[in-house]
Amino acid sequence: MFIGVIGGGRCSKKVAILAEGVGRELAEHGATLVCGGLGGVMEAACRGAREAGGRTIGILPGNRAEDANAYVDTPIVTGIGEMRNVIIIKSVEVVIAIDGQYGTLSEIGHALARGIPVVGLDTWELSQRGKLKDSIILAKDAKDAVEKALAAVSV
Amino acid sequence: MFIGVIGGGRCSKKVAILAEGVGRELAEHGATLVCGGLGGVMEAACRGAREAGGRTIGILPGNRAEDANAYVDTPIVTGIGEMRNVIIIKSVEVVIAIDGQYGTLSEIGHALARGIPVVGLDTWELSQRGKLKDSIILAKDAKDAVEKALAAVSV
Amino acid sequence: MFIGVIGGGRCSKKVAILAEGVGRELAEHGATLVCGGLGGVMEAACRGAREAGGRTIGILPGNRAEDANAYVDTPIVTGIGEMRNVIIIKSVEVVIAIDGQYGTLSEIGHALARGIPVVGLDTWELSQRGKLKDSIILAKDAKDAVEKALAAVSV
Amino acid sequence: MFIGVIGGGRCSKKVAILAEGVGRELAEHGATLVCGGLGGVMEAACRGAREAGGRTIGILPGNRAEDANAYVDTPIVTGIGEMRNVIIIKSVEVVIAIDGQYGTLSEIGHALARGIPVVGLDTWELSQRGKLKDSIILAKDAKDAVEKALAAVSV
Repeated sequence: MFIGVIGGGRCSKKVAILAEGVGRELAEHGATLVCGGLGGVMEAACRGAREAGGRTIGILPGNRAEDANAYVDTPIVTGIGEMRNVIIIKSVEVVIAIDGQYGTLSEIGHALARGIPVVGLDTWELSQRGKLKDSIILAKDAKDAVEKALAAVSV
Repeated sequence: MFIGVIGGGRCSKKVAILAEGVGRELAEHGATLVCGGLGGVMEAACRGAREAGGRTIGILPGNRAEDANAYVDTPIVTGIGEMRNVIIIKSVEVVIAIDGQYGTLSEIGHALARGIPVVGLDTWELSQRGKLKDSIILAKDAKDAVEKALAAVSV
Repeated sequence: MFIGVIGGGRCSKKVAILAEGVGRELAEHGATLVCGGLGGVMEAACRGAREAGGRTIGILPGNRAEDANAYVDTPIVTGIGEMRNVIIIKSVEVVIAIDGQYGTLSEIGHALARGIPVVGLDTWELSQRGKLKDSIILAKDAKDAVEKALAAVSV
Repeated sequence: MFIGVIGGGRCSKKVAILAEGVGRELAEHGATLVCGGLGGVMEAACRGAREAGGRTIGILPGNRAEDANAYVDTPIVTGIGEMRNVIIIKSVEVVIAIDGQYGTLSEIGHALARGIPVVGLDTWELSQRGKLKDSIILAKDAKDAVEKALAAVSV
């Protein structure tokens, strides 16, 4: 099973620990982690996955495989910049969004538009006309996020 | 000047009137409207622009120029699906988001990630950790939206 | 009618004169020129078109509208690098290939794969198993190229 | 090492045997096969690779992982149609072109434009002004093709 992890290319130490935990949990459940292949949340999640013996695919925005973080075992070089976010979304069954800025927001939008479940850890909240949308499945920690992601897919 | 208009491929009558007004105002200010080229908000905005003598570019998701609504004078056929939203964002100086669902949300995310100002008419509200972000410039009607868009660019 | 002009980002003086002539002829026939928007053949063709009062669309590979040559009136900013060649092909009814290197070859391949007629001016010749393919319509000068392009579309 | 295999989505029995041999040889040399993930040459090459214990990545043009042939172990879902050919080229160190039509020609063009070596098995011949270009490394059978591909990379 392919599961996406999305989040910023830079992140705090605290968020990195969260992302690493998500990577580790994914690996322990036998899931392949798909992400954008760069630093921050992506790197921390890949490190967690690899250290637990898991597989990691990095869908890179630029033109060089060398841009991938050291924990990506399968770098895919797209050269299409931030549009590569859409390839991540299309290649997975569920996405875990961790923290993140506007790039992560656009990725959440693409996932929800496509009907891919999004599990959120300390990420965006979305409202329309003053009313909070419950479209993101909230998780409280890494273990909870991966359990909710697996549950969302098995529905 | 190229200004983007984003919003759903289907919309209510009320939203269509709003979008048509935005298109008309853009034409009257001499701006070229860039949108996704399909129905709903896109079609209404193009109709407003064309009826006021303006120019309209449609960046189409599919493989056929014939998919463009009748008010697009310059159809660009991308074949890259929803990723074409990013081309709209990159080709304009400011974006007006009208209503919209998750596709519009992803487009707002792309614009803000790139530093393109977003003027919102009855669209998404974004929060993080319970705190509303003020990254979208709120407008109250079509005239106000176009004035705020022009002001955001001239800064 | 949208007609594509493809060729190298650098070219000899002789090829530039050919491209400028193609641009001029397109404008005189009321066609809109669509190209990659950069230098060399693209710039020369756009200059010819604009000086004859025609319209020019540049589908740019990078992230900046400023990369367009001075004769592009409608820059589309894709950020997808050489993949933007496919958008050129999809947006036109016929393509005129002038000189060019491997990028032009890939564009010819995309056009023929899609069933878009290709008129060639001093460009690639294609063979399989020692047998020349006649898939490119050969032209002898700018005027001939544009006439053959228009004829290919009106079929 | 990632090596690309390109060729038509349909092919003769004879070409399929050739492609299967290329896949097998790649696996035996420990290379990961990257292809477009569909039928014909792609499917035959993936089958050869998997039956010899190798790894196979399919960069799919459409929106569904289910479109991948049965021998792809890592499907990447792009939704960008034939542009996905460029992602294949960017993700590999060398490409083996087998037979193929205009789509394969465009892929050869992209590879050569990027400086990626192309090994050809019964594929296109390229000329300019009546002079054959020697830019494609000719191979006589599957074993020869893989040996030449590996040699081209180790330069």
